[in-house]
Amino acid sequence: MTGPRYRDPTAPVAERVRDLLGRMTLTEKVGQVNQRMYGWHAYERDGGGHRLTDAFRSEVAAYGGMGALYGLQRADPWSGVGFADGITAADGARVADAVQRHVIENSRLGIPVLLVEEVPHGHQALDGTVLPVNLAVGATWDPGLYEAAAAAVGAEVRARGGHVALVSALDLVRDPRWGRAEECFGEDPYLAARLTEALVRGARTADVAVVLKHFAGQGATVGGRNSAATELGARELHEIHLAAARAGVRAGAAGVMAAYNEFDGLPCVASEPLLTELLRERLEFDGIVMADGGAVDRLVRLTGDPVAAGALALNAGCDLSLWDDCFPRLAEAVERGLVAERTLDTAVARVLALKFRLGLFERPYAPAVDRPSDPRELSERIARASITLLAHDGDVLPLTPSIRRIAVLGPNADSIAQQIGDYTAPQRPGSHHTTVLDGIRSAAPPDTEVTHAPGCDLVGGDLSGVPGAVELAAAADIAVLVLGGSSARSGDTTFDTNGAAIVTSAESTGMTCGEGVDLADPRLPDGQLALLDAVAATGVPVVVVLVQGRPHALPDLSGTAAAVLSAWYPGPWGGRAVADVLFGAAGPEGRLPVSIPRSAAQLPVFYNAKDHGYRGYVDQPATARYPFGHGLSYTTVGYAPPRLSRTRVTPDDPALTCRVTVRNTGERPVRETVQLYVRRLSGGSSWPRVRELRGFVRLALRPGEEADAVFEIDAETLASVTRDLGLAVEPGELLLETGPSSAETRGARLVVERPG
Amino acid sequence: MTGPRYRDPTAPVAERVRDLLGRMTLTEKVGQVNQRMYGWHAYERDGGGHRLTDAFRSEVAAYGGMGALYGLQRADPWSGVGFADGITAADGARVADAVQRHVIENSRLGIPVLLVEEVPHGHQALDGTVLPVNLAVGATWDPGLYEAAAAAVGAEVRARGGHVALVSALDLVRDPRWGRAEECFGEDPYLAARLTEALVRGARTADVAVVLKHFAGQGATVGGRNSAATELGARELHEIHLAAARAGVRAGAAGVMAAYNEFDGLPCVASEPLLTELLRERLEFDGIVMADGGAVDRLVRLTGDPVAAGALALNAGCDLSLWDDCFPRLAEAVERGLVAERTLDTAVARVLALKFRLGLFERPYAPAVDRPSDPRELSERIARASITLLAHDGDVLPLTPSIRRIAVLGPNADSIAQQIGDYTAPQRPGSHHTTVLDGIRSAAPPDTEVTHAPGCDLVGGDLSGVPGAVELAAAADIAVLVLGGSSARSGDTTFDTNGAAIVTSAESTGMTCGEGVDLADPRLPDGQLALLDAVAATGVPVVVVLVQGRPHALPDLSGTAAAVLSAWYPGPWGGRAVADVLFGAAGPEGRLPVSIPRSAAQLPVFYNAKDHGYRGYVDQPATARYPFGHGLSYTTVGYAPPRLSRTRVTPDDPALTCRVTVRNTGERPVRETVQLYVRRLSGGSSWPRVRELRGFVRLALRPGEEADAVFEIDAETLASVTRDLGLAVEPGELLLETGPSSAETRGARLVVERPG
Repeated sequence: MTGPRYRDPTAPVAERVRDLLGRMTLTEKVGQVNQRMYGWHAYERDGGGHRLTDAFRSEVAAYGGMGALYGLQRADPWSGVGFADGITAADGARVADAVQRHVIENSRLGIPVLLVEEVPHGHQALDGTVLPVNLAVGATWDPGLYEAAAAAVGAEVRARGGHVALVSALDLVRDPRWGRAEECFGEDPYLAARLTEALVRGARTADVAVVLKHFAGQGATVGGRNSAATELGARELHEIHLAAARAGVRAGAAGVMAAYNEFDGLPCVASEPLLTELLRERLEFDGIVMADGGAVDRLVRLTGDPVAAGALALNAGCDLSLWDDCFPRLAEAVERGLVAERTLDTAVARVLALKFRLGLFERPYAPAVDRPSDPRELSERIARASITLLAHDGDVLPLTPSIRRIAVLGPNADSIAQQIGDYTAPQRPGSHHTTVLDGIRSAAPPDTEVTHAPGCDLVGGDLSGVPGAVELAAAADIAVLVLGGSSARSGDTTFDTNGAAIVTSAESTGMTCGEGVDLADPRLPDGQLALLDAVAATGVPVVVVLVQGRPHALPDLSGTAAAVLSAWYPGPWGGRAVADVLFGAAGPEGRLPVSIPRSAAQLPVFYNAKDHGYRGYVDQPATARYPFGHGLSYTTVGYAPPRLSRTRVTPDDPALTCRVTVRNTGERPVRETVQLYVRRLSGGSSWPRVRELRGFVRLALRPGEEADAVFEIDAETLASVTRDLGLAVEPGELLLETGPSSAETRGARLVVERPG
Repeated sequence: MTGPRYRDPTAPVAERVRDLLGRMTLTEKVGQVNQRMYGWHAYERDGGGHRLTDAFRSEVAAYGGMGALYGLQRADPWSGVGFADGITAADGARVADAVQRHVIENSRLGIPVLLVEEVPHGHQALDGTVLPVNLAVGATWDPGLYEAAAAAVGAEVRARGGHVALVSALDLVRDPRWGRAEECFGEDPYLAARLTEALVRGARTADVAVVLKHFAGQGATVGGRNSAATELGARELHEIHLAAARAGVRAGAAGVMAAYNEFDGLPCVASEPLLTELLRERLEFDGIVMADGGAVDRLVRLTGDPVAAGALALNAGCDLSLWDDCFPRLAEAVERGLVAERTLDTAVARVLALKFRLGLFERPYAPAVDRPSDPRELSERIARASITLLAHDGDVLPLTPSIRRIAVLGPNADSIAQQIGDYTAPQRPGSHHTTVLDGIRSAAPPDTEVTHAPGCDLVGGDLSGVPGAVELAAAADIAVLVLGGSSARSGDTTFDTNGAAIVTSAESTGMTCGEGVDLADPRLPDGQLALLDAVAATGVPVVVVLVQGRPHALPDLSGTAAAVLSAWYPGPWGGRAVADVLFGAAGPEGRLPVSIPRSAAQLPVFYNAKDHGYRGYVDQPATARYPFGHGLSYTTVGYAPPRLSRTRVTPDDPALTCRVTVRNTGERPVRETVQLYVRRLSGGSSWPRVRELRGFVRLALRPGEEADAVFEIDAETLASVTRDLGLAVEPGELLLETGPSSAETRGARLVVERPG
């Protein structure tokens, strides 16, 4: 090679970075940690194509390049750009390449830009395939399925020139009041860790770098208030909130997004204890830390000065900012002595390393991507696998062909906008979406009549439709009542199945969920419950289907509903999935990834609470309405007690096998999720929790079939957080428990002896 | 002196301790840190007197002495011992002296026993004077008054031979669901610190050593659940939960009780970070740490073994246990090497030091105590000063002599048991208690008719009395509706004003508050609200008086109540205090020591939340129904903006004066509580709170009178918690705000410059 060392693709990344960094000016360095522009401000429509804007050109010129550009493919979410104006799949690669070419050609050292895309549950871009929200993914308990979906979505992103996907993964629903509950895999560290791993693995097969959102503890802010303070201590952080990050880092996540929330007194973006001591030093993460959008600007409340705010975040361990006015002024911070140039170099080096690792210096442009496995089919499979049967009195389900008339009622029965969740790509006309009503219509036997009325609006203020709904119910053999919430946002444009545009607004839909939409009281609105009562009073069996992005608090429905299912936000094709389960084409396979509370008053409710033997409030229990891990099927399943290959182990030699025999005692096949929990009886450095999920396996069982679920127990299964916040197998007594939910387990005792 | 050094009263305490310790056997040492016996098991009735039990004698014999004896004067709270069986004021000193004599004579080295008494709000003993609960004390904002009451109560304890008073002081109401909210001075660190100081000072004037309950963070357990986990981080602990402990230690508290709750993974009794690193090393506390009752036994859940549990607590920093089976086995712990004898010596030394400091080696017996200032009068004064006028539409108050008929209604209108709170001495017949009904009857003009009906029961299940109450209201000029909660416990025996015994039970009263009685939903019960609505519908003006031990969540009462007062649990003579305020003999002077929430759903609600600009939930505000510091009077008061003597200070030279001119603009005299808050605009190591109380003064103003409230600002006023958890004046901009409540302030800007 005669060129500079950093151009040598055979050189180690660290050497290339060092060489390149040595050639850069302070301004060029600042440009590499800057991601302040919205991608949709980089281009404008020009006849049939797009051209780069002056704003973009001058941003590149000002810094001699550009570190990263956020959301180039994302339609402007606030002005509701549609398919006629934004970048579609057909334009994606061309526009991305034009941006990249401009950056490289206007960077003295030819450094490519990172194209960063929003991919919370599918690529949030025109034509992006929408997956069910993370909470639904959590309900599948199926990392393999999610890995496939992540690969398919990743390929979509990559085909349009995107390099980095921002994906929700690390937040846990520790308070259902939080509007972003839908972005979480659930309340449990272990389940979230397995799904985060799957996500990173899947995206990596598509050569997409993942930035995991968000670090850390954002699901446990005070009162479920968005972007507020998380007041937890170090031990709660380590025991509950780090597992997904640890797993994601180990799986090779390229980045982590520092969250908005405060942790122990400092916003995460300003927290050296979190970003440096914990993430880099303890978890040995060597990728990039990106600030959440505008989060660095908020630090001005603390520093009184934007230059100092940028310095604070950089010194804490943020490498790349987003939409802020502080990082662009880091040169001044260096000049004022607020930041050592060495510290800036470290951040720049991490950004450059990612670009080298992604091969952008060699292959900066959008690749030809083979058509991957169909992401739409995977979206529908996730929807189907996530549907969770919470309650089932008698045998109303699956619906039999003898049913002649079905009344499909409720405010969520026939709205695509209300079933796809927040952070969602606009939906293209004629994409064959299916609402629950659509799904039932198409799945019902040909001679079955399907009637429909919403009955009430989402927030339940308008009850004028109740009598009409009741009339339909009274004339039917069964009523399917589709209730829940909605994250349909003002300004999102969606389309009905005939291609007509439907512009939804918070006012018209009564948006009850999504970012910035926290509910103090997450119960189903009174109006929806009134509709349920009125319909149930007809005597017709009622199947309640909850389309929701959070675990709504539920009253005791045993007197009113013959069955209760949660379909979460099942995505654009979710109606078909719901119908498949209702008619028995698929069994309900979902398991609760989160506890369903009884009321706002009893919050927080977790299965893995600290074990203080609390007997409950005097006015209501402290336990969940439906517990974590719960989910019925259309058959019955019997569990034997677990059997251990050894009952005494040592920290140095902890391996054993735990087997549990499971039998399908009913008359329909089932895919059963067998769960493994660890309950500490004594020992350990910290007060024990009631139990903790540490494994799960799926068993497909025909009627009458029996099989063993086998868990290979290792040090990780048995590990607990030590006094100095490490992880280790600590001596003491444990129960290894297996069962179909966190509230239905049988245990076998295991002694961990002191070594030596 | 020819005797041993430890007997020389002129020798320094440290030398006496060292000398005595050197003479003790391991068993004798274990005896000194042991407090496992209930005091009421030490004696039994013997004709007209009492004799010591065999159980007591063998306990003393087993350990060659006794470290401490809990609750000798306390009537057995669980079997409801009455005046005929328990120790009354007349017997108190004699029984105490008999116990002491037996211990000294059966201790080889003649070490006296510490007599430890329960004094949460008055001495919990037969004939003990009951004060209003701490939450009422908090509402007075009057440390001077409370200091006098603490001195009077202390003298009662001392006169009966008690040495150590266990007093609630350190817990804060950070969750109104917690049943022990009544034991807190409120939600605020500063207010609690001033009252804790007053408590310790007052008790010291009576030569009573105070053990402050509880350390630490017990008011912030998850979900307000008693004895559960407090998951807070170090910064929240330091900023909110330590101020009262710090002030109490500085004022000379002899001891601190380690709380039941877990903090950062370990129960407080097992937490070396809390008890040793924080309390002893950082706060420089050199008194005793006592475990809460049975708390050490609970550690067996962690250690699997009582001997190891005792070792864990002792090693963490507990000096003296309570009611447990672990500390009595510490000799075995030493022998097994779980505890160093040196560590045990340290704990014993602290117990002995307290005995020397109290002069027990020289004066072991109950002293003749001059009759102190009348504690009953002080109890009533606190009750009067605590009554807080929350809302007042129009001018219904004070009641005018023209009123001819008053209907006094509601389940709390006529029950002594329901107005005295938990942890209360049984009430002697004929003690001239006054319920609200009694008070109104005695304060009303002679020709005013006072009628009464409860209307409903406390939990509101029985509404059969509503029509009768409505009838009385309709016939009256005004209805006083006394609602709220009750901590009247099953087995507590109370007496009506004619001396007839009333045995209350949780079932009959619907106990809604007190230790172990947490409410998920702390709103007023529906039945009470239904009674209110029915009474209001008569059109008669309604004055709501809340007799309560927690800040019940309140609906918007502006349409139904002409005035709303909180009387807290005002104690045995509280009815008179309420009547004085209603009739204008006293102004309402109370200020809220806690935020009154709108609902359980919006919890937590504090005025001093972190300042994240949260705009509220979509279904309800995140702000309080009535804010901290709020309290109306019978006049109007105008506040000028504050004036600062300097607007720039440095950390080394922070002193300045803040003055605010306050004017009584109405027609009645007032004692106004002028409040000083600090709001950080920038700088500091931690994200700022909305505002923080840092001072208050009382101004008595005649109608039309104007005066200045003067605040001398010093380093403590301006201090914030530093990065390394110290306290310092940190550079940045502050607002010094003054006003009549936390929601009604005007500010002046102060710059704290960087030093040099």
